[in-house]
Amino acid sequence: MYSFVNDYSETAHPRVLEALVRSNAEQHVGYGLDRHSAAAAAYIRDACGRPDLQVHFLSGGTQTNLTAIASMLRPYQAVISARDGHINTHETGAVEAAGHKVFVQPGQNGKLLPEEIAAAVEYHWFDQMVQPKLVYVSDSTEWGTVYTRAELIAIREVCLEKGLYLFLDGARLGAALTADRNDLSLSDLAALTDAFYIGGTKNGALFGEAYVIVNPLLREGFRYHMRQRGALLAKGWIIGVQFEELFSDGLYFELARHANQQAAKLSGAFVDKGYELYVARESNQLFPILADADAERLGAEIQFGKWEKLTDGRCSYRLVASWATPDQAVDELIRAL
Amino acid sequence: MYSFVNDYSETAHPRVLEALVRSNAEQHVGYGLDRHSAAAAAYIRDACGRPDLQVHFLSGGTQTNLTAIASMLRPYQAVISARDGHINTHETGAVEAAGHKVFVQPGQNGKLLPEEIAAAVEYHWFDQMVQPKLVYVSDSTEWGTVYTRAELIAIREVCLEKGLYLFLDGARLGAALTADRNDLSLSDLAALTDAFYIGGTKNGALFGEAYVIVNPLLREGFRYHMRQRGALLAKGWIIGVQFEELFSDGLYFELARHANQQAAKLSGAFVDKGYELYVARESNQLFPILADADAERLGAEIQFGKWEKLTDGRCSYRLVASWATPDQAVDELIRAL
Amino acid sequence: MYSFVNDYSETAHPRVLEALVRSNAEQHVGYGLDRHSAAAAAYIRDACGRPDLQVHFLSGGTQTNLTAIASMLRPYQAVISARDGHINTHETGAVEAAGHKVFVQPGQNGKLLPEEIAAAVEYHWFDQMVQPKLVYVSDSTEWGTVYTRAELIAIREVCLEKGLYLFLDGARLGAALTADRNDLSLSDLAALTDAFYIGGTKNGALFGEAYVIVNPLLREGFRYHMRQRGALLAKGWIIGVQFEELFSDGLYFELARHANQQAAKLSGAFVDKGYELYVARESNQLFPILADADAERLGAEIQFGKWEKLTDGRCSYRLVASWATPDQAVDELIRAL
Amino acid sequence: MYSFVNDYSETAHPRVLEALVRSNAEQHVGYGLDRHSAAAAAYIRDACGRPDLQVHFLSGGTQTNLTAIASMLRPYQAVISARDGHINTHETGAVEAAGHKVFVQPGQNGKLLPEEIAAAVEYHWFDQMVQPKLVYVSDSTEWGTVYTRAELIAIREVCLEKGLYLFLDGARLGAALTADRNDLSLSDLAALTDAFYIGGTKNGALFGEAYVIVNPLLREGFRYHMRQRGALLAKGWIIGVQFEELFSDGLYFELARHANQQAAKLSGAFVDKGYELYVARESNQLFPILADADAERLGAEIQFGKWEKLTDGRCSYRLVASWATPDQAVDELIRAL
Repeated sequence: MYSFVNDYSETAHPRVLEALVRSNAEQHVGYGLDRHSAAAAAYIRDACGRPDLQVHFLSGGTQTNLTAIASMLRPYQAVISARDGHINTHETGAVEAAGHKVFVQPGQNGKLLPEEIAAAVEYHWFDQMVQPKLVYVSDSTEWGTVYTRAELIAIREVCLEKGLYLFLDGARLGAALTADRNDLSLSDLAALTDAFYIGGTKNGALFGEAYVIVNPLLREGFRYHMRQRGALLAKGWIIGVQFEELFSDGLYFELARHANQQAAKLSGAFVDKGYELYVARESNQLFPILADADAERLGAEIQFGKWEKLTDGRCSYRLVASWATPDQAVDELIRAL
Repeated sequence: MYSFVNDYSETAHPRVLEALVRSNAEQHVGYGLDRHSAAAAAYIRDACGRPDLQVHFLSGGTQTNLTAIASMLRPYQAVISARDGHINTHETGAVEAAGHKVFVQPGQNGKLLPEEIAAAVEYHWFDQMVQPKLVYVSDSTEWGTVYTRAELIAIREVCLEKGLYLFLDGARLGAALTADRNDLSLSDLAALTDAFYIGGTKNGALFGEAYVIVNPLLREGFRYHMRQRGALLAKGWIIGVQFEELFSDGLYFELARHANQQAAKLSGAFVDKGYELYVARESNQLFPILADADAERLGAEIQFGKWEKLTDGRCSYRLVASWATPDQAVDELIRAL
Repeated sequence: MYSFVNDYSETAHPRVLEALVRSNAEQHVGYGLDRHSAAAAAYIRDACGRPDLQVHFLSGGTQTNLTAIASMLRPYQAVISARDGHINTHETGAVEAAGHKVFVQPGQNGKLLPEEIAAAVEYHWFDQMVQPKLVYVSDSTEWGTVYTRAELIAIREVCLEKGLYLFLDGARLGAALTADRNDLSLSDLAALTDAFYIGGTKNGALFGEAYVIVNPLLREGFRYHMRQRGALLAKGWIIGVQFEELFSDGLYFELARHANQQAAKLSGAFVDKGYELYVARESNQLFPILADADAERLGAEIQFGKWEKLTDGRCSYRLVASWATPDQAVDELIRAL
Repeated sequence: MYSFVNDYSETAHPRVLEALVRSNAEQHVGYGLDRHSAAAAAYIRDACGRPDLQVHFLSGGTQTNLTAIASMLRPYQAVISARDGHINTHETGAVEAAGHKVFVQPGQNGKLLPEEIAAAVEYHWFDQMVQPKLVYVSDSTEWGTVYTRAELIAIREVCLEKGLYLFLDGARLGAALTADRNDLSLSDLAALTDAFYIGGTKNGALFGEAYVIVNPLLREGFRYHMRQRGALLAKGWIIGVQFEELFSDGLYFELARHANQQAAKLSGAFVDKGYELYVARESNQLFPILADADAERLGAEIQFGKWEKLTDGRCSYRLVASWATPDQAVDELIRAL
């Protein structure tokens, strides 16, 4: 039975595994100082059009988030996030364990609004309160929505006005940048954020995220932070080799596009059959609202997750398409509908 | 110009200072192991009707909150608080700096509701989320409201059902236990909470809080926690002497009663003159809603603080009466109204 | 030019990569709840002769050390380590970043002595000092030395007497358990420690360590700790598949034995040529003392690392053989000597 | 029976208590923003000859050390201390609880040597090790020894060369600056350190330390740090009033001089009677070596503490004179000798 539970149910794209097998004959320098990591970083800098960027490879999303955020803040400073932000709800308090408050605002469809950022800063007006210093957004968001260029510029402007850093969690950046509604590029991210990461785990890699530091103030000592958090892999080239393969010829975006297309087909089918979506689909996740009987019937054919109990008693569900989702699985689901 | 800004604008009740002067001739054992601290702890245990309680003296409220909470939780566990809880808004992220998430619920007039506690636990259902393990309430609350016995019992029951500890911040416990609406006693607190503290700073002492540990599971090593957080005063007897004086003959409650009475007079006067209170006054704080002109006019006569901008554009203000508030100041304010 | 700099210069044993390629066709459940992780854990429990053990898979050594140690200690408790212990010198203060002091004793050839443990406990006699609660040893040690059964029993006894947990870092456990001098088995470790880990990164895996919790008191909530520290891989089966392959038929120990044999040949050659070893070789690392000219000459043929400047002005160097070290590299080095 | 156990056995100098009683009639602004704290800070800036210094008042030594050190370091940075440094041995791991390693060097008679600082930096050469960024010294030291100007200049020079901050713990700064051997002034400290504190607890105050930040880089946000650590007293003026009194006319140094003189008499008596001192007395502490019988005999007349078991089986003891030690107590002890 095919699982649409998430986009990290498959190990890795065959070309990624082949690249690892290929490089297995060599000896490598440890801790990310190898030539594959250097090559991967160069591809990423090229894709951003910025030869000066610092690129680091970490093994997972939570690790990247906690290491990055801890590296940016002084002990009394806080990060602003939408309520549904991954750091707020699904990382077992990793940011707080590193000593920092996550100040939450409601957000809209998973996206943080510029006026919420401004309000958060104004609310914290004196030294008995934490000092917000960082804005956390993710693209795509936990709701599968994506930021437009205009939206990100508006956030950037309020950050500049309020003296805040902007960090973009790109665990699903591939899906975001290849979404129909998207008009952002990697260059834009390098121009509009202080740091962001490009997720590999959910887009074709075995694991691994490429953390890109734009703001020179945030670069000093980052390898120390990684090492201290257990985020500097001894065999760092294992991530380097994967990103080298994914970025050498656009494979990364090709895989993300596939995930979005499969999700679009699914989403279209749900809508055609008269199902409501909790939020309009924009990338590789969809959130249909299903009556219990429908959920049960579908659940006999495919796997997917319950999301939220709605106030009217119905439930929303989540289906995620991945780089690996075959046409057959999509067709079966559509038939089952 | 008299200040109603808070209840910690005066140094200490004269009897407290005299007790310090009196004991100044003696040499004392350090770090809270002296006979005055022992005597003060005995008075408190007596007042609670529980000879087994562990009592520690710490120098301030934030310090007590952070040390107590950090001593109760494992790294991945969180504390549930009303949004207005002092630990959430006015301690510069002290709990997060100790590594723990403060999970907030809206609360009602500053009070946390039993159903909010249950909902918080149900929301955190698996290991990618923090695990709520502790409930934080304060009595009186940041809104000056007080818990009734029935309300605290209801909270206790949900704590027992969900396997949570209950900690009561008593920075203003004197004002709470002498409020008209109050039907709780120190014995009740010892029966219904796992730990609580009796605030001295805001009720007649120079500084100092008496932290009472009820649950034996929470007692082990607490002096180590205090020492590590810088919360174990070298001259611990300085707090012991004060609490000995405050609890030897009921002075503590007499002072609190005075504060409440002065606040009642002020509150009555505001209501008589047609002013609205943001929340009904229950202890020594009141929150009148004032038009800008009224606030300015009153501000020429007495000092008080702006509290919140309301959605209709008006503002609420806070006035606090203390153990030291003289009748004259109250009368002047009433005249000014 | 072959590198003897460490035992993590090669990606993974071909069988490990093949197992990953093989399982790439399947979909898997995330976060270590998959069948490969379960199978790997079962192999490890079998090898320990203990069906009750809890086994978790983490991605690296520092991460395992910091997550394990943080899960065992209360905030005021400390871990005792030999000065050369990895947690003390080579993890960028990861244990301190999690809030705990590493109390160091000199040790002997990298090994902690029972009398040093007892002395550490006696030294910390009151609540102005941290409370030692955990002993950290590694087998093999940073000096490549291995503990005998009698030595580990003596350490266990002092731990029991002093109320300490014992944690064994097995980043190089394969090399230790296949050393000539070794008389310990996995069953012994399960009988003598409270927790230990079996290192994959340095013995044939791409990465990954299997953390084995023996003491039931240390099991509760460990997945929360992992998640919070970023140590729970989304695609947890990637480590599971590797350990399944390594432990299905003894490959793990076969690889370690090879590393030790190659190191024995190297070590023999150094001794035959009259070179002094800083410490007698026991596993896959050797520490010859070389004059500058010799070091330079050898460095033209093979890669290896400088270790320490000795008091007499000479330097010790480190050479490490791995599961992958080919005979040819060993022969070339011997020729170069 | 008089206690020479420490210099914090008496509450406060009468003039300090009188100043508190005197100011008890007033209302004050909270959190250290009052006019007494401002006046005390001005006295201290004057005494340092530096109108630009930032001065904060905290309630105890451990709290000052942990708050100051945590404010100076990035997460991966460490502080260098002599083994006997208070932060290393007697603060229950407060610095580690704030996330930082204390890297210890042996020191000499409690004093850290410049060459030990240089060696510590050289030892930590890459990103798998913490990065030393701060030097911690105390004057007087735990052994009662004091730094000369030349010694402090030498330490400063190595700090500048290695890019380290220098922080001086002045819990017993009064005793140090009035020692016979001393040639340092407050102005020198302001010229030679990045930050230091002037201890009140052990020299006439009820409690309280004045933390002086010299280096502008270390000033930003310090009140946030204080608040977060529970180190910002609500009634901050209570410390301000005390320091105002102590520094208005030199009372602070007068008290310290008295303590040193009493210690000198005691020390002279021990030496006259043929007792050996473990380290030459320089300030208000002395460490005689006593045979068991002598210790027992003296212990029947006065109180003092055992210090260390020496390698030859004898023990050193510690006697501390304070600002309050009366001639009579000194004479009695001398008679008892």
